[in-house]
Amino acid sequence: MKIDGTPFRAIWVDETDGWAVRIIDQTKLPWALDIPRLTSMEAMAHAIKAMLVRGAPLIGASAAYGVALAMRTDSSDSNLSHAIVTLGATRPTAINLRWALARMEAHLRPLGGNARTVAAYAEAAAICDDDVATNAAIGRHGLPLIEARATNGRRVNILTHCNAGWIATVDWGTALAPIYMAFDKGIDVHVWVEETRPRNQGASLTAWELGKHGVPHTVIADNAGGHLMQRGDVDLVIVGTDRVTRSGDVANKIGTYLKALAARDNGVPFWVALPSSTIDWTISDGLSDIPIEERAQSEVTTMTGRAMDGSIATIRIVPKDSPAANPAFDVTPARLVSGLITERGLCSANEAALAEMFHETA
Amino acid sequence: MKIDGTPFRAIWVDETDGWAVRIIDQTKLPWALDIPRLTSMEAMAHAIKAMLVRGAPLIGASAAYGVALAMRTDSSDSNLSHAIVTLGATRPTAINLRWALARMEAHLRPLGGNARTVAAYAEAAAICDDDVATNAAIGRHGLPLIEARATNGRRVNILTHCNAGWIATVDWGTALAPIYMAFDKGIDVHVWVEETRPRNQGASLTAWELGKHGVPHTVIADNAGGHLMQRGDVDLVIVGTDRVTRSGDVANKIGTYLKALAARDNGVPFWVALPSSTIDWTISDGLSDIPIEERAQSEVTTMTGRAMDGSIATIRIVPKDSPAANPAFDVTPARLVSGLITERGLCSANEAALAEMFHETA
Repeated sequence: MKIDGTPFRAIWVDETDGWAVRIIDQTKLPWALDIPRLTSMEAMAHAIKAMLVRGAPLIGASAAYGVALAMRTDSSDSNLSHAIVTLGATRPTAINLRWALARMEAHLRPLGGNARTVAAYAEAAAICDDDVATNAAIGRHGLPLIEARATNGRRVNILTHCNAGWIATVDWGTALAPIYMAFDKGIDVHVWVEETRPRNQGASLTAWELGKHGVPHTVIADNAGGHLMQRGDVDLVIVGTDRVTRSGDVANKIGTYLKALAARDNGVPFWVALPSSTIDWTISDGLSDIPIEERAQSEVTTMTGRAMDGSIATIRIVPKDSPAANPAFDVTPARLVSGLITERGLCSANEAALAEMFHETA
Repeated sequence: MKIDGTPFRAIWVDETDGWAVRIIDQTKLPWALDIPRLTSMEAMAHAIKAMLVRGAPLIGASAAYGVALAMRTDSSDSNLSHAIVTLGATRPTAINLRWALARMEAHLRPLGGNARTVAAYAEAAAICDDDVATNAAIGRHGLPLIEARATNGRRVNILTHCNAGWIATVDWGTALAPIYMAFDKGIDVHVWVEETRPRNQGASLTAWELGKHGVPHTVIADNAGGHLMQRGDVDLVIVGTDRVTRSGDVANKIGTYLKALAARDNGVPFWVALPSSTIDWTISDGLSDIPIEERAQSEVTTMTGRAMDGSIATIRIVPKDSPAANPAFDVTPARLVSGLITERGLCSANEAALAEMFHETA
């Protein structure tokens, strides 16, 4: 999508040398647009682990380019294995990471030498192009959900949590793809952006990318979403996901479950947008089978932002002797999900519907 | 309760002069224990409006002392009316504010001159003592809810939202009163403290007061409460309230409703602790009848805490062109409330039970 009028993707090969990988450092957003040039598998693994890149689809694409960078240095079988293991260990929850690495390994393992390196770059590029096409299809399939509520030029209010926008993917985003399509089509959309504590991906990333593309939006505390639904100010909830089970349970950023409960209680449709690569066909019960990443206490006890002098500052917001807990995801049971927006169309969140729509992988 | 071993109340008359009013400036917590000396009604009105004092019961007690300070300056009928109006306009949601001012006015209106001033201080002191007795009774009635879950020395995990502790009242607190009683009795309690964005009263006030008294606790993002209930780590939710309708609907800090939904979905008891002065017998439907205060955008777009150099700093956490919305309270429908903990005992959250327990005011 656009940044101040210029089209961007979230990851690409450096045009000047044709092999280094460029990403947007999302830890610097919204305060600076910093575009590091990554030249090694280790740098990419760090970028994923330290969340310079984040969002399930972008993590997958980044890991693929991480393999390509590794092959350029050493295209041996052992280094391929080393890259797969190293990149696979960067984040525990995102299924796309494992999916992309498996795709790279299956494609590269039969090849050798320079052919393997060339194929690695080509396959990573294909993963990116596929992601863009997939997300555009998600946008097209989700668009009617918004259009149906825009009768007589009425403003459509959509609530989203965390960041499932174009910078969480290669382009378009998942949850935000239908919103960008609606906006580009001239529909009057307005997005309630939940700040998404503790890392504030909503306030810092979603608000930034919507603002840069020109989409009307309002930032709210995560606590406010239920109240807005109670008073009728939310027409539709659309969120992304990090992993969906074969039965339609949805793992997403911590707090998503609470909004699904509020949506159900107020008759607000609760939709989850995802590429089918996010579906983990090996598990069924999300609550018992999805490991939940416990992240550092410091994400809860401190906050980073722009100080009044313009510098980036980190402040402590919890008394120094108080411990904190930081589960990063929660699971929304399928029973609370109105439906899934996939690249093949809208799908009910249950095993039968998923198995029918994705019969060849189910 | 205690601060590092020394017993405190949250408001008192200065011992040295016998008329100025001392409060703990809660906007400075948890970073500094600042105890301003207020010498005018206007200073007290500012202290309430700027939230140096907050919490429904403490706001009532503070308003009462605000009237006393006004009477000391000018005990005329017109100044009494002026004080009631000015103090009554400081915060729109807290019913205790109106309750305390009505009690002061009823007591003082028949009196004149110096007798009115003396009576104003005496009545404000009585409101404070009554509040301490009321909260101690809430603690005694709530204690068995915790004791019942502490079988065989098992740790009891209690989740709370915002701050309904001793510094939100004159002493003991409402939601925290049963917890302090359980802790002082040697029961192994642990409190999940929700940070309570946007003002972070949980992280900055509840964590502070529990820590200073020695009660084990862990700070979490507001988003995490539902997940903790899903995985069985919450035995009991206890929150305070700013206003309860005659039918048992509960207005409390924004986000409370979401935790009530999660408690219901996971079979976790959801209790609301309150003095009966918090009940507004004039309204029934909380969703339609309770006005919700919309506070400044800056509470959402900025955060204040301690910088690494020890100074108190405010940082911006939302892009500069993104607007914010900030509803300060939400309403939890009575159907989601397991029960009310009042100074007279436990009470179901419905009109018949409330009318029976408080028959003389209902």
